[in-house]
Amino acid sequence: MDAIVLLSGGLDSATALAMSRAAGKVCHALSFRYGQRHAVELTAAAALARALGAASHRVLPIDLVGGSALTGDGEVPKDRSAAEIGQGIPNTYVPGRNTLFVAYALALAEIMGAGEIVLGINALDSSGYPDCRPQWLAAMQEVARLGTRAGVEGRPVRLCAPLLHMSKADIIRAGTALGVPYALTLSCYDVAADGRACGRCDSCSLRRRGFEQAGIPDPTRYT
Amino acid sequence: MDAIVLLSGGLDSATALAMSRAAGKVCHALSFRYGQRHAVELTAAAALARALGAASHRVLPIDLVGGSALTGDGEVPKDRSAAEIGQGIPNTYVPGRNTLFVAYALALAEIMGAGEIVLGINALDSSGYPDCRPQWLAAMQEVARLGTRAGVEGRPVRLCAPLLHMSKADIIRAGTALGVPYALTLSCYDVAADGRACGRCDSCSLRRRGFEQAGIPDPTRYT
Repeated sequence: MDAIVLLSGGLDSATALAMSRAAGKVCHALSFRYGQRHAVELTAAAALARALGAASHRVLPIDLVGGSALTGDGEVPKDRSAAEIGQGIPNTYVPGRNTLFVAYALALAEIMGAGEIVLGINALDSSGYPDCRPQWLAAMQEVARLGTRAGVEGRPVRLCAPLLHMSKADIIRAGTALGVPYALTLSCYDVAADGRACGRCDSCSLRRRGFEQAGIPDPTRYT
Repeated sequence: MDAIVLLSGGLDSATALAMSRAAGKVCHALSFRYGQRHAVELTAAAALARALGAASHRVLPIDLVGGSALTGDGEVPKDRSAAEIGQGIPNTYVPGRNTLFVAYALALAEIMGAGEIVLGINALDSSGYPDCRPQWLAAMQEVARLGTRAGVEGRPVRLCAPLLHMSKADIIRAGTALGVPYALTLSCYDVAADGRACGRCDSCSLRRRGFEQAGIPDPTRYT
């Protein structure tokens, strides 16, 4: 089975890629350049694609930027507690991002004949983005079923989100068991010029707590 | 009300734009360069955006090409009857196209604060594309409701497809009443170097029959 794996360069999607590889799938990694301030994550994605044995890695441009602190509109929030991170949609939400990512992945899956799209989304220890929730995923699965040739002809591309209901600690435990080189992953929204993570944005906070709760040393280089 | 109007340069989306303008909406036209062999339609789209009073016109690149006769894989079918055109999905289907278009429009609507996306899709006199059907549209509406900040906060972007259940003849009658300059529109999948339409592809066939059935002179320059 060929799978398109959405790979950001972060911890979650790297783990999802490792799981798919462990299940014996031929994995085509797909990343996007969408004006993210942490575009260095794409270097991490390339390294992870190689390290985890992806059959290919493609980076597509999305030439529509705006409406998010992640693309330069406003400041990335720092030092928020777990309770604060769980409340509401933060300004790091990127309009339409995962819908666009899956739309591209659907097109690529049909072009390549891949039967599955793998997403590293995670509804539990996440930043409260609407396009990381099970309801959104179910709606996108309907789009795949109803709006593509593959779907109408009875072999819809399957959207697979193995981390959806896992905690960050469980994800890290699972990935560690599979040998995911977490030192190569980059979660930070506000990376320093020397490549080190800020340790204080929501993404760093969730990551740090995840390693702590998993009882696994965090290999991240923080500033 | 601000609306994002998907504008291909063809007859249907031009009519949908005219309808939205007639309803008093501020319309932002959105087109895509996706490797289509009839990319000259983008020149038509720009002329139509101006002629029909769009507030802006943006052309976004989609850097993923393949799997369709419209982007160079195989020959565009010619001289098919109405019955033939209605059967199955032709090789001019472009994988994931309208899902990608609406995903971009959703992102742009959230960035601009537009409340509506207008599509010129048409299920009746169409080429049998799955991503022109009401079921697909309903699924995308769920994506807009569940997967965006606007949706989760109770003001989902509305997907509006005024032509969905109209025949081509009815579309042409409605557009003519609104003064749509159909001579500027380009429907052909296989345009000649001199800009004339082939008159024989599915899109030309549907267009020709539409004008005939509407009893309105067809201003198209055919080869």
